[in-house]
Amino acid sequence: MAEPTPPNITHEFSWPVRVYWEDTDAGGLVYHASYLRFIERARTEWMRTRGFEQERLRIDSGVLFVVRAISIQYLRPARLDDLLDATVAIRERRPASVIFQQKIVRAVDRITLLEADVRVACIDPSTYRPRAIPAHCLQLF
Amino acid sequence: MAEPTPPNITHEFSWPVRVYWEDTDAGGLVYHASYLRFIERARTEWMRTRGFEQERLRIDSGVLFVVRAISIQYLRPARLDDLLDATVAIRERRPASVIFQQKIVRAVDRITLLEADVRVACIDPSTYRPRAIPAHCLQLF
Amino acid sequence: MAEPTPPNITHEFSWPVRVYWEDTDAGGLVYHASYLRFIERARTEWMRTRGFEQERLRIDSGVLFVVRAISIQYLRPARLDDLLDATVAIRERRPASVIFQQKIVRAVDRITLLEADVRVACIDPSTYRPRAIPAHCLQLF
Amino acid sequence: MAEPTPPNITHEFSWPVRVYWEDTDAGGLVYHASYLRFIERARTEWMRTRGFEQERLRIDSGVLFVVRAISIQYLRPARLDDLLDATVAIRERRPASVIFQQKIVRAVDRITLLEADVRVACIDPSTYRPRAIPAHCLQLF
Repeated sequence: MAEPTPPNITHEFSWPVRVYWEDTDAGGLVYHASYLRFIERARTEWMRTRGFEQERLRIDSGVLFVVRAISIQYLRPARLDDLLDATVAIRERRPASVIFQQKIVRAVDRITLLEADVRVACIDPSTYRPRAIPAHCLQLF
Repeated sequence: MAEPTPPNITHEFSWPVRVYWEDTDAGGLVYHASYLRFIERARTEWMRTRGFEQERLRIDSGVLFVVRAISIQYLRPARLDDLLDATVAIRERRPASVIFQQKIVRAVDRITLLEADVRVACIDPSTYRPRAIPAHCLQLF
Repeated sequence: MAEPTPPNITHEFSWPVRVYWEDTDAGGLVYHASYLRFIERARTEWMRTRGFEQERLRIDSGVLFVVRAISIQYLRPARLDDLLDATVAIRERRPASVIFQQKIVRAVDRITLLEADVRVACIDPSTYRPRAIPAHCLQLF
Repeated sequence: MAEPTPPNITHEFSWPVRVYWEDTDAGGLVYHASYLRFIERARTEWMRTRGFEQERLRIDSGVLFVVRAISIQYLRPARLDDLLDATVAIRERRPASVIFQQKIVRAVDRITLLEADVRVACIDPSTYRPRAIPAHCLQLF
């Protein structure tokens, strides 16, 4: 984090997320597990932007990306009808996994509501065992 | 369908369901789609009681049961912490599908909160095409 | 939208929905209850297009719209990564409720995957009792 | 419960969780966000065992417990039909928050599938601001 990063690595990707009834709970705010869905949508769209669809990857390349670890800080709550931005950046690359740095920002005032580090590993969908990220996927990261 | 059904077939099965935060929305009540999860749990447990697990069926027998149609009446709302009973009875049997009659009843006062008819069809999980319910599953229904 | 619309006919509104991991189940397709979330998003966006936000309505006008009945036909399954259109049209207006006719169409080939009738009632969020749809909301329908 | 418990040690509470279709995704395993729902159920039941219901607390005492931070390690996957145990222990108490140490263990072989630290804070449900855990709730922890 302290050292300079090459220009095209940390470019942050952002995906809009609207809060619906389905995302809230009786406390009146967004249910805490819903944010995991929001940031996964952003990772998926980040991959799609780079030309990769997860269903295609699974069928064509025997590649499934699964979440191995998450660390989340809930800073402020989101509410019904809020428009949010879920961001994606890469914190660290390894041969068989990637750590994403993600945020949820409220669109109207750019306040950060949530920060998360998500480690995603590459596995073989037939055996569910770890495997190296295939060469043709490396351009993803 | 035309023939008389033995008396012990329509005996209603009941499965307890507790309402958690995950099931509610910002309106303060149970989210309307959560009830579909509740009544599916009851169908699954009704099958398990008869000795059938869905994952086993899929792998061993090439049988997947999928929902084809639902008709729901929401009569009264459930709330956080409520204890409910989700019931299962069979309304109609066909060669490749079954119509379940289901209810959700509030445990504390036995008031019916929801009534639903759910048509479940038997498909082949590799092709997703309809297939007859296999003979060894007929005892289920 | 600019020209007058005949009283009983509604132009259909359509809202795009992308299928993510969160929407699927281990059968490999979209989980049956997820479609209820999809069609609710379309109803919510249809309202927003007309200038109504549900959270505002609840706080400012004491109006909460809740689902009272749903009838769904599942025609064909959606899969991970599919792009869908969820449509909204009004089938019937009543003083305290509205029946929506909704569909889910696969964007790539315009095949209809699901049809649903959804009855939505107007209630008072403090008492959860039915109330007439307020005059200033009638333009919605 | 009657006998004195040493200050830093908490008896572990365990709550059974069955995996249903609703909990899985098209990868064939339990969806990663579903585990957050499982461990929350265990925390809620742990509170109920001690005589506290969250809806009662919110209404009677102006107390809402919300998740402030989560750190999860996904060790092994759960599958459809698996029976799991979600455990609850207290790692740390503070005046306005508690850190729970939680695990998900597969019932059949006692293998740990997931470990999580969850920080839960006490807030006022009308303002959503932090508040000290009230005295009569301290027996909870």
